[in-house]
Amino acid sequence: MTITRNWLAHAEGSVLVEFGGTRVLCAASVESGVPRWRKGSGLGWVTAEYAMLPRATNTRGDRESVRGKIGGRTHEISRLIGRSLRACVDYKALGENSVILDCDVLQADGGTRTAAITGAYVALADAVAWMRKRKMCPGDPLVTSVAAVSVGIIGSDPMLDLCYTEDVKAETDMNVVMTGGGDFVEVQGTAEGAPFDRAMLNGLLDLAAGGCAELTRLQAEALAAATK
Amino acid sequence: MTITRNWLAHAEGSVLVEFGGTRVLCAASVESGVPRWRKGSGLGWVTAEYAMLPRATNTRGDRESVRGKIGGRTHEISRLIGRSLRACVDYKALGENSVILDCDVLQADGGTRTAAITGAYVALADAVAWMRKRKMCPGDPLVTSVAAVSVGIIGSDPMLDLCYTEDVKAETDMNVVMTGGGDFVEVQGTAEGAPFDRAMLNGLLDLAAGGCAELTRLQAEALAAATK
Amino acid sequence: MTITRNWLAHAEGSVLVEFGGTRVLCAASVESGVPRWRKGSGLGWVTAEYAMLPRATNTRGDRESVRGKIGGRTHEISRLIGRSLRACVDYKALGENSVILDCDVLQADGGTRTAAITGAYVALADAVAWMRKRKMCPGDPLVTSVAAVSVGIIGSDPMLDLCYTEDVKAETDMNVVMTGGGDFVEVQGTAEGAPFDRAMLNGLLDLAAGGCAELTRLQAEALAAATK
Amino acid sequence: MTITRNWLAHAEGSVLVEFGGTRVLCAASVESGVPRWRKGSGLGWVTAEYAMLPRATNTRGDRESVRGKIGGRTHEISRLIGRSLRACVDYKALGENSVILDCDVLQADGGTRTAAITGAYVALADAVAWMRKRKMCPGDPLVTSVAAVSVGIIGSDPMLDLCYTEDVKAETDMNVVMTGGGDFVEVQGTAEGAPFDRAMLNGLLDLAAGGCAELTRLQAEALAAATK
Amino acid sequence: MTITRNWLAHAEGSVLVEFGGTRVLCAASVESGVPRWRKGSGLGWVTAEYAMLPRATNTRGDRESVRGKIGGRTHEISRLIGRSLRACVDYKALGENSVILDCDVLQADGGTRTAAITGAYVALADAVAWMRKRKMCPGDPLVTSVAAVSVGIIGSDPMLDLCYTEDVKAETDMNVVMTGGGDFVEVQGTAEGAPFDRAMLNGLLDLAAGGCAELTRLQAEALAAATK
Amino acid sequence: MTITRNWLAHAEGSVLVEFGGTRVLCAASVESGVPRWRKGSGLGWVTAEYAMLPRATNTRGDRESVRGKIGGRTHEISRLIGRSLRACVDYKALGENSVILDCDVLQADGGTRTAAITGAYVALADAVAWMRKRKMCPGDPLVTSVAAVSVGIIGSDPMLDLCYTEDVKAETDMNVVMTGGGDFVEVQGTAEGAPFDRAMLNGLLDLAAGGCAELTRLQAEALAAATK
Repeated sequence: MTITRNWLAHAEGSVLVEFGGTRVLCAASVESGVPRWRKGSGLGWVTAEYAMLPRATNTRGDRESVRGKIGGRTHEISRLIGRSLRACVDYKALGENSVILDCDVLQADGGTRTAAITGAYVALADAVAWMRKRKMCPGDPLVTSVAAVSVGIIGSDPMLDLCYTEDVKAETDMNVVMTGGGDFVEVQGTAEGAPFDRAMLNGLLDLAAGGCAELTRLQAEALAAATK
Repeated sequence: MTITRNWLAHAEGSVLVEFGGTRVLCAASVESGVPRWRKGSGLGWVTAEYAMLPRATNTRGDRESVRGKIGGRTHEISRLIGRSLRACVDYKALGENSVILDCDVLQADGGTRTAAITGAYVALADAVAWMRKRKMCPGDPLVTSVAAVSVGIIGSDPMLDLCYTEDVKAETDMNVVMTGGGDFVEVQGTAEGAPFDRAMLNGLLDLAAGGCAELTRLQAEALAAATK
Repeated sequence: MTITRNWLAHAEGSVLVEFGGTRVLCAASVESGVPRWRKGSGLGWVTAEYAMLPRATNTRGDRESVRGKIGGRTHEISRLIGRSLRACVDYKALGENSVILDCDVLQADGGTRTAAITGAYVALADAVAWMRKRKMCPGDPLVTSVAAVSVGIIGSDPMLDLCYTEDVKAETDMNVVMTGGGDFVEVQGTAEGAPFDRAMLNGLLDLAAGGCAELTRLQAEALAAATK
Repeated sequence: MTITRNWLAHAEGSVLVEFGGTRVLCAASVESGVPRWRKGSGLGWVTAEYAMLPRATNTRGDRESVRGKIGGRTHEISRLIGRSLRACVDYKALGENSVILDCDVLQADGGTRTAAITGAYVALADAVAWMRKRKMCPGDPLVTSVAAVSVGIIGSDPMLDLCYTEDVKAETDMNVVMTGGGDFVEVQGTAEGAPFDRAMLNGLLDLAAGGCAELTRLQAEALAAATK
Repeated sequence: MTITRNWLAHAEGSVLVEFGGTRVLCAASVESGVPRWRKGSGLGWVTAEYAMLPRATNTRGDRESVRGKIGGRTHEISRLIGRSLRACVDYKALGENSVILDCDVLQADGGTRTAAITGAYVALADAVAWMRKRKMCPGDPLVTSVAAVSVGIIGSDPMLDLCYTEDVKAETDMNVVMTGGGDFVEVQGTAEGAPFDRAMLNGLLDLAAGGCAELTRLQAEALAAATK
Repeated sequence: MTITRNWLAHAEGSVLVEFGGTRVLCAASVESGVPRWRKGSGLGWVTAEYAMLPRATNTRGDRESVRGKIGGRTHEISRLIGRSLRACVDYKALGENSVILDCDVLQADGGTRTAAITGAYVALADAVAWMRKRKMCPGDPLVTSVAAVSVGIIGSDPMLDLCYTEDVKAETDMNVVMTGGGDFVEVQGTAEGAPFDRAMLNGLLDLAAGGCAELTRLQAEALAAATK
């Protein structure tokens, strides 16, 4: 996995994540103010939007803007990314500011949602640093980091970081989001093929924990580097 | 939990599930034929749509038909129910037929998605029986049963079957869908509050397994009863 | 016709109307405040929304939320119910409050719109009582009651309360909404088959007047009963 | 009321109806073939679409195309016009052909829906003549004519042909559609103000019958005239 | 080209432009206030909406309101008309008022967009006169006039004022909008057929300049005439 | 201007165009078959879709997919790109195949539409080469190349290649699309500020011709290079 910070000139934080053939552009936009239902609370907000370019995949997909509505898969992933990133934020320390994380898949080769979460955290950290330099936040809004991996069962073996072709054959697909401290933020396991038992679940979780720890290390490394 | 079969006159299978203050009407509609992308495969299909009446909750919500689009939460739950029910179906034995499961929440008091899954299985079983009586299926499409519970952490204790008010206070909310044989179909745990560790996850899964087993028993009991 | 009050736990007024195989759930929601165009007038507002569950009928219909727009029939019936209920309301006595009447057809067997109006009146009466107990209204907003029947011509005979199968064969379909005092609020007669003459119209109106009087009696009876 | 035939060069039938300050352009378009649900039946179809230009009224209204959806009022009137015109058509004699009646209000001054019906009949008659000249129809599809008037109660007097300002003050508004032979096709009476009794209803119907007879005469006159 | 002023009773300015078989109704609506993004600037705004009635053309087109979205061509022409008309307006002299120009094509026979611009200018001039009579504007908002023609290449000859059938055969289509003083406001040339060279472009521009000068004269003549 | 070919792994042709701070990703997708209205003609089709990522610009813009409709500017630019690229294609030689050009602006700093056209040509050329290698086309579909520049007036001087900040101040903005042979495909000049005279138009066209010739050279150079 390669993490390139500041890929965009305008965004307060931006990261191009590359992971196998998958490339996701994560942009963090800071807006002062919060959605209407949160006004006057003194609390901030973090939200995310996920989308895929029409030719990110092997066959061209219609644009959701042209069809005039967002599909269920897009909705579901956008919500997952938003929830995951909110897990590392102290709303009070953020103050009444919002950060919007746009995760656009430029090329897809499996694991786009977990790559998006992992990259979005770095973009969020840069955006928070940008805010703190301008003294926009009453405190330090980042209480931990988050990273995500995809694990699955191929044949009867648990496997980490499924690339696209493997994903298709996987009988079970599990996305796991963990904090830098090793706690769970999201566990989403789905068996469209054969249901799985507790032992297999434990195997998948072990694999995921190791993968997330490695990604946490890569995130820290990327954030420690001087940026251009 | 109360399961009332044949609540509707027209549907091939229908169930009113009542669970605390929650009431979900599950209707299974049989259609011969499958969606375009599956034609000629010899395989069947099962899908689900979830919705909530505007005054199911304490304050009235706008209708999604009036707003002109389906919200992310509705999409996400519809997809979860569909995936869960497909886990107990042998598409080949179903033949090129579709079953659509409409889960409409008449009254909401927490746990609507897990009540919907649990009820939808019974409606599906009735619809499959209806089809088999008419010799529409080449085999027996039901390979297992599915049931679902919601578990969460209140304070620092794992709790089963969160009612609405508890749901709000829950730091973690986990939906678990299991087969009648005790395997996992879906595990969806989300920590919007504090992330949880592996021990807590194990506690939640133990609780869920017990809950699902009890619901599996209730489903079997309901299906064994003679219907009017 | 059976009228079950307080079918829902959350709504200020709610009624399940059952009439042949038709079952309509009517929920009255009280909101303080009125639509923007009526603000500052000192007058209240009453409106209605009608919808049908996808499997209310013999063949499953697509959800209007999924199609992304409301059909002409739904619009037309929602407007009819709203107008009918407004006929029994003194806006000044209601004060700047709104009552929204949600009429959701759980099962359809003909006459859903007239069942909806008849049930919605009882839900409205309960909601008004709820408001008056909380002293939200400057006066008594209910100046009369309303009830509705469907009449039609089968062969060449006028018939009351057409059930669904008869409806299909009816050459003329007329919906009549009347006050408890026997005056007309709405008269909507349509001849998709053979046009009808004045004598036939008179016969239909006579029949409707009798039907509405009977429903008015049932509404009063339901409202007189102690509720759980 | 002025009826100008052939106002458009391209349409198979077209009429500009002027009635007080109201101007409605009615275009009848012939299409060979019928909607999917009617194919193979040997029967034709007639449908209508009603719309209003943004500056037809005193204050500019938003375009429904810009808002992205059709309002309830537009839906309701389009359906009324379609039903009314279908009352004078023998589908079998029309054969599997469709006529679409577009009624666009260029200027509104009350009574737009009744003017639209009255004008659309003449456009339909011209379109049918066009088809018969080309021998597209197996028989004569027009079994009668239809015309429509609006009547209402001002103060306590029934009044014919309400212009816009009167319309606003009217306590009751009734649209009546009748055949050339004096039978009823549609009776739509609405009391948003005070409900009305049977005597008043009879008075309104008498007035409407006289008005429709006069319009029937004007339609026949217009159709008898040689066209440019 | 015929320009009929005051074709509508309600609009502050209105013109029916007839040009060959093309008929466009241009209505100018005055609204005090400006869009949100311009509030408090002291500057006015002018915008336009273009649309075509379904049977304006030889074959009936679907309504954009029914399809639920505006097509690319409609968007493009609406924007062109708005930009063209804004070229003759001094926003400061207009004050914080808006003029909306609705250009509805009643019948189309080529050149609808250029006819719309030419007519809209006259409607705008009448609306401005209406405002000045009421002393709504701080100054004289009209700094020049605008007119537009369509030119193209048929075979290899430049041609003015393409009617519909010629338009279809044209290898190049160019719309030119000019001020009364002979300067360019818009030059839009498109070669869907063979690309054109500089000499041909010059020939088209010469032709366009002559055409616009003639239309400027007709606009002045129309505005000089006393209106009913 | 930098042109990077084969930026995407899946698309038949793909180019990342960088030009000042502007970055546009152009993907050419080949589909066998043509739109319905062109079936059986033996002719191919080329179309384009343009879009901007939400944080391409200095302030975040809402997604068109979330708003549920495509804006006028997006429609207009998509149509311009499509028309421009079709100018270099021989439909007969292409056979009944379609090429869709997706131009997604990753970062915007002025001139996005002209950068998109210039890059899309290179992506189209690669896609055509891909097709010819597979013998999908009956002939050579590329009859020329196309390139585009933006020119404008700053103060009173014509300027080439407006970057974003200059664009804002420009009184006139002109987009010119030319073939490799120096002929015009599109000339789109707009004066939202002061109208311009013929001499200025000539100055702008001279500047544009020089700019397009230079881009044509860069395109040829990029296409001559061996690709990875």
